[in-house]
Amino acid sequence: MTLSKHKKYMEMAFKEALKGTNRTLTNPLVGAVVVKNGNIVGYGHHAYFGGQHAEEQALIKAGKSSKGSDLYVTLEPCSSYGKRPPCTDIINKFGVKNVYFESYDLNIENNKKASKYLKKFGINSFKIDTGLPSLSEYNAAYVKIVKQKLPFIILKAGLTLDGKLCDKNGCSKWITSQASRIFSHKLRASVNAILIGSNTFNKDNPKLNIRAPIKYKYNDPYKVILTGSGNLKLSNELIKKPQKGRVIIATTLSGKTYLTKRLKKVPDHISIETFSAMSNMKIPIKKILIRLKNKYNIASILVEGGAKVFTYFTKKSCFDKFYLFYSPRFFGTGGKCCSLFTETLQEQAGKPLKNRIIETIRLSSDILTVIENRT
Amino acid sequence: MTLSKHKKYMEMAFKEALKGTNRTLTNPLVGAVVVKNGNIVGYGHHAYFGGQHAEEQALIKAGKSSKGSDLYVTLEPCSSYGKRPPCTDIINKFGVKNVYFESYDLNIENNKKASKYLKKFGINSFKIDTGLPSLSEYNAAYVKIVKQKLPFIILKAGLTLDGKLCDKNGCSKWITSQASRIFSHKLRASVNAILIGSNTFNKDNPKLNIRAPIKYKYNDPYKVILTGSGNLKLSNELIKKPQKGRVIIATTLSGKTYLTKRLKKVPDHISIETFSAMSNMKIPIKKILIRLKNKYNIASILVEGGAKVFTYFTKKSCFDKFYLFYSPRFFGTGGKCCSLFTETLQEQAGKPLKNRIIETIRLSSDILTVIENRT
Repeated sequence: MTLSKHKKYMEMAFKEALKGTNRTLTNPLVGAVVVKNGNIVGYGHHAYFGGQHAEEQALIKAGKSSKGSDLYVTLEPCSSYGKRPPCTDIINKFGVKNVYFESYDLNIENNKKASKYLKKFGINSFKIDTGLPSLSEYNAAYVKIVKQKLPFIILKAGLTLDGKLCDKNGCSKWITSQASRIFSHKLRASVNAILIGSNTFNKDNPKLNIRAPIKYKYNDPYKVILTGSGNLKLSNELIKKPQKGRVIIATTLSGKTYLTKRLKKVPDHISIETFSAMSNMKIPIKKILIRLKNKYNIASILVEGGAKVFTYFTKKSCFDKFYLFYSPRFFGTGGKCCSLFTETLQEQAGKPLKNRIIETIRLSSDILTVIENRT
Repeated sequence: MTLSKHKKYMEMAFKEALKGTNRTLTNPLVGAVVVKNGNIVGYGHHAYFGGQHAEEQALIKAGKSSKGSDLYVTLEPCSSYGKRPPCTDIINKFGVKNVYFESYDLNIENNKKASKYLKKFGINSFKIDTGLPSLSEYNAAYVKIVKQKLPFIILKAGLTLDGKLCDKNGCSKWITSQASRIFSHKLRASVNAILIGSNTFNKDNPKLNIRAPIKYKYNDPYKVILTGSGNLKLSNELIKKPQKGRVIIATTLSGKTYLTKRLKKVPDHISIETFSAMSNMKIPIKKILIRLKNKYNIASILVEGGAKVFTYFTKKSCFDKFYLFYSPRFFGTGGKCCSLFTETLQEQAGKPLKNRIIETIRLSSDILTVIENRT
């Protein structure tokens, strides 16, 4: 069969895979199609963490037609017992003849092992390269989790061309265009959690919900608030009303005491996580991220500010991408104008770049510049 | 004749016109081609202020072939006496049959008058629209001079994505990429003058010359330095050595006294212009611009900073375009980090935009964002 035929089927599998966006983590996105005599007889995707794998879903859909079929799957099939039986066994059970996959799995349990198991069953398998986006592009969060055991971090700011988050009156609302705001809401629907600092929480009383049409099913992201002191406005929406997506407050022991004293009863939709040494620029970011991953299965986080939070994450180089939505405005310096960062950073003129611009997109009057952290 | 034929000839005329970039001001760029029996028999452009008009140059080149020809010219031919005799007379003298032009001249002396004069001579003339860039695009400085009697102002900054002109050590060199610097030098070659403030002059000891290959002949721009106090480092290059392009120091009477006392003799390559009330944010920008235009025929200026100068020009909305070369760096706030502006500006969140992004260009690692002032 020519590569172009393979490519056609693999692209369909890839489209299937994307249907799981935001819900499969900490598992990867995977899509599969079953082809028999040139006809698609089954297709499927990994739809949520703990759910059926793409291969199993596609083969069940194909039923008896699976016998003697070609299976296209975006990722190397698993060959170990996890939450589901190994896909290699299932593939065998359904009588598949040939398996084509695009990327090796990074998970050490499965990495480069499928072929060996499939061969035992007399099934041919081929790693092919049809030029789809790389695993680290469409499964960036999965790759980060496997390699670094840390969630994928996206920072996101709406700012002026002179780098200001708010104007001389301290106002930060309606800086960017509607197109930028819609894009931001789509970003929210792609992650497991949204994180903000206490200043942003107290000042903006944000909803952190998704107010844009999203084409795929998604899980409402957790809403994480960082506060060393526990000094949060209790009348704010995220505390007062149950939300789609649980609220997690990351604070200190004394912050928790202060909060619970004022709250009397911690509302059911809120979890409080305590950490030591969490004040004055001493936020233990990595500890927080690891807890969020291990306890809540959070594998991707959108950090929405404010300036202090951006400063913590940037100083510790604790981000993967930075989405900067620039409005063609200038606010200048002084008054309550607030810069993107509250402290000096290590970066210097003339030194090698730590970041790379990977994309620029015009969004109505604005320009979105996407940065990738290269350190 | 079809529009596509007209377009072909007009595009050639347009290419001719661009050969005069930076040298024709305060006159417009104009190009012309002479067509006889489908052959180009002559072409020309307005090459420098006071020089032959494009029509005359093209017709002289065509010589006797001009008789019964079609003349294509990007701008309505002049019909009044300026530094040259009216082109309408010259067109008649050479026996042209048809004249096609793309835009009406804005100059009141000539505006919509050519056809009347040409008709008297029995010559047909047609204003056609072939979709070339508009007069206000390729002749922006000319249009500004005619309409507002002020030079066209381009602000230009190299900065980080968080809006900083220098790092925590005060260093502003080598922020942007080489591709950005080459682009900046090309910008310099497109204007009549480069303007900086005294801080930039004293700190950077800049050459303000053109260090990139330029495809057209250009006049070296004037180098204008703003200083209220006259406190300039006399050992700096622009003062010590004769330069390509005259140096103009705009200062106060006392600034001039202070300067001349220290200089003993003002070098031949330097002119000093004095203005009243020129200190502490009270720079009389418009007066300076008018003097530069009237006395030196400066019709376009590239303003290269620093932050104070950007603040003056932006506060007074005294610019047409802003070229922002962003390097994917973050310097943060504090130390000697310097923002794009030194004061708060009037612009506010939620209010209508004063500026518009007209272009974004990737320049190696950087992104150039070009802003147009809409006020």
